[in-house]
Amino acid sequence: MTITLGIDPGLNRTGYAVLERTASGPVLREGGVLRSTKGKTLAERVFEIGHGLREVIQEFRPAVMAIEQVFSHGQYPKTAVLMAHARGAILFVARDHGLPIAHYTPTQIKRLLTGSGKAGKEQIQHAIRHELGLEAILEPNDVADAAAIALCHYYMTRMTNAIT
Amino acid sequence: MTITLGIDPGLNRTGYAVLERTASGPVLREGGVLRSTKGKTLAERVFEIGHGLREVIQEFRPAVMAIEQVFSHGQYPKTAVLMAHARGAILFVARDHGLPIAHYTPTQIKRLLTGSGKAGKEQIQHAIRHELGLEAILEPNDVADAAAIALCHYYMTRMTNAIT
Repeated sequence: MTITLGIDPGLNRTGYAVLERTASGPVLREGGVLRSTKGKTLAERVFEIGHGLREVIQEFRPAVMAIEQVFSHGQYPKTAVLMAHARGAILFVARDHGLPIAHYTPTQIKRLLTGSGKAGKEQIQHAIRHELGLEAILEPNDVADAAAIALCHYYMTRMTNAIT
Repeated sequence: MTITLGIDPGLNRTGYAVLERTASGPVLREGGVLRSTKGKTLAERVFEIGHGLREVIQEFRPAVMAIEQVFSHGQYPKTAVLMAHARGAILFVARDHGLPIAHYTPTQIKRLLTGSGKAGKEQIQHAIRHELGLEAILEPNDVADAAAIALCHYYMTRMTNAIT
């Protein structure tokens, strides 16, 4: 069945969620964190994240990657520039495997999961737990965020399919 | 002979310079610009830059890549975040080919090429032209900047070799 790969990008840690569309609804096949080694160079850390992502893509063969839209205005702290390095490697690896990339804003993610673009973290967590039939809250945070964006894409395409 | 690949990263255009160490001094084998397509998505543009770099690396088999140090403080405009996406893909592709990466600050580059860390663009251009035995100023700017950092690495390793 179709698999969506949700990504919450970061240079230290990148959360990922492998979401499968099944006849009985969305199933979380795997949630995990790609880590880079503190103290290594930026290039090495970027490589570790990209290399880890490549392994996940090659194992699960997702049909699409879903990732948060890059913020569109304002000034950025240094962490945003470091994160952007990781995000660049992630986008490159995904396209290098021919994956289409779906972008969503934080507001879209909240609205699609809870009905409100202003939902708090707990509401989002509740929606993920409910939708995926989990016994407990999905942790850590970056895996939950990755699952949220994968679910967001799941709903978007389900609606699109219903319309066409 | 050993080849250094100098890179001036950018999302719209990434300048590169292929510098060969020969018995009679440094020789510019190729200078060029990797371009991304305006209007395409960020992911697609990042992929175009990374893919172009991969082709250059596979053609010339450089021993090392030299690139400017990422700025280390302050606030960043949106362009810096976009550039960092391209830079992340570039670092990933280089490490994916096993290339070591040398970093230099703008001050180091100026000092090594002209003797002064406060040299202007014209002095740098003069030094590049002189060192590479070119008949005219190296253009465009991003190719000149890529050649400058490749030359910077050339001097650094020449000095290191002289010491050891």
